[in-house]
Amino acid sequence: MIIDRLFNEVEKKGNVCVGLDTHLDYIPVNLKEKYQDIDEILFEFNKEIIDKTYDLVPVYKLQIAYYEAYGIKGLLGYKKTIEYLRSIKKITIGDIKRGDISSTAQMYAKAHFEGEFEVDFVTLNPYLGFDSLTPYLKYIESGEKGVFVLLRTSNPGAKDIQYLKVSPKDEYLYYIVGDKLNEIGVKYRGSCGYSSIGAVVGGTHIEEAKEIRNRYKNMFFLIPGYGHQGATGKDVSLYLNKGNGGVINSSRGIITAYKNYKDGDQRFADYARKAVLDMREDIQSERGV
Amino acid sequence: MIIDRLFNEVEKKGNVCVGLDTHLDYIPVNLKEKYQDIDEILFEFNKEIIDKTYDLVPVYKLQIAYYEAYGIKGLLGYKKTIEYLRSIKKITIGDIKRGDISSTAQMYAKAHFEGEFEVDFVTLNPYLGFDSLTPYLKYIESGEKGVFVLLRTSNPGAKDIQYLKVSPKDEYLYYIVGDKLNEIGVKYRGSCGYSSIGAVVGGTHIEEAKEIRNRYKNMFFLIPGYGHQGATGKDVSLYLNKGNGGVINSSRGIITAYKNYKDGDQRFADYARKAVLDMREDIQSERGV
Repeated sequence: MIIDRLFNEVEKKGNVCVGLDTHLDYIPVNLKEKYQDIDEILFEFNKEIIDKTYDLVPVYKLQIAYYEAYGIKGLLGYKKTIEYLRSIKKITIGDIKRGDISSTAQMYAKAHFEGEFEVDFVTLNPYLGFDSLTPYLKYIESGEKGVFVLLRTSNPGAKDIQYLKVSPKDEYLYYIVGDKLNEIGVKYRGSCGYSSIGAVVGGTHIEEAKEIRNRYKNMFFLIPGYGHQGATGKDVSLYLNKGNGGVINSSRGIITAYKNYKDGDQRFADYARKAVLDMREDIQSERGV
Repeated sequence: MIIDRLFNEVEKKGNVCVGLDTHLDYIPVNLKEKYQDIDEILFEFNKEIIDKTYDLVPVYKLQIAYYEAYGIKGLLGYKKTIEYLRSIKKITIGDIKRGDISSTAQMYAKAHFEGEFEVDFVTLNPYLGFDSLTPYLKYIESGEKGVFVLLRTSNPGAKDIQYLKVSPKDEYLYYIVGDKLNEIGVKYRGSCGYSSIGAVVGGTHIEEAKEIRNRYKNMFFLIPGYGHQGATGKDVSLYLNKGNGGVINSSRGIITAYKNYKDGDQRFADYARKAVLDMREDIQSERGV
């Protein structure tokens, strides 16, 4: 199962998920001048970072919005990047946060689990209800694919909906979502103990970390919020379980790390590698490995 | 403001929103054989339907999932269709249901309110909270753009999250979302009285229609669920206000109407027109116009 592959990769390489949220402003001018088309620029930047980090990284996440923003060529850059990652056997997360009625969700599943935009995991939004997940289940059942459903996100606005208290138990809404996902996920647990139905849990809120980790022992977490958004290695470690059970995403902190160095433009991928190493150490020193 | 344009179009043309959720299976074989590339097939099918219906229709909605499913070429078909609609001054809704943290939402706004995928309205998902709407506001403020945020959807799973009862008032969650949208929307009301921040309200649940319509008098509704999903002209009319204040989407019921006729393959666009006329009458007879 894909979740076992991810678990094993984390065992070997640690918890750093590199977020390739590639804004054109993040790319050194000299690289931008070398290529004519946006798809090439995006892809070549991503490829250099991948080539310098793949031995340290269990999984790469692409935020599709950054590619959509550049239109057809942008999405071509997305496609090329995920194809490259898959060709070198790296695990990929398409951060698409789609959520729609089931006939439409079926088309999204086709888009991102087959064909040109095929990735190993996608992120999903639960607002439309659990029938919106159904079209993804056959792919998960095949063992090849997995999902991370939004539980509690890393942004301040997470409070607006996800933290509403639901009667009669007066529990946070995200627990209603989590409990249901946990229940659906039982059927899709790998030999590692985790389910291929995982959850997105922002690392920026630490108060409830222990409760969430305990409540969902078999759920693998995709944890955003490290670095730029404020979560530390100590914060995010609270969501791990013996150093596994989660991957921690960082994007800007890694792919724009080079901007802090004089020779950064020439060596952006080296500085991305350094940022991954630093982050890995920051997390590992806290998880007690 | 864009909402005034939509209001005026509804006054003139009625409430039918044609959903161009164009699955390849929906397209007659003879048309598919005429063109080589998927983008051309999707676009030519859409164009024929648009050309036969534009005088009856205030707004067209494209469900982007159907195009994403066909990869780069599919999205090229999406792009060509919205470009064509805009070139003939028709109002367009990109049914994208995106929702993300604000830095990412900014990229989605750029993707769908500027550049190659530019539309007049997009649909948005509120699960991440109201800061996820912020990046869209500058476009709305300009008067050029509007949004429809998911309030209560048309699928059975709507019950799972949207109908949770929130303490302390024990109110449905979708009212929490709606009240907040209503509040944000005040600033963006057009001379027609409606706000450019509208809501998606499924026509399939009729029990609360009156309450929703009364509670959100200045909110324009995008109403899915007609036809294939079960809502009737009578049902959806409950969400209108003197025949305006909402558009009712139908996709399969219109674009695959031709399948019921012997000569349908040759005249699919004529039958789409007939379906729009029938639907318009079904709604109008109920709204008492």
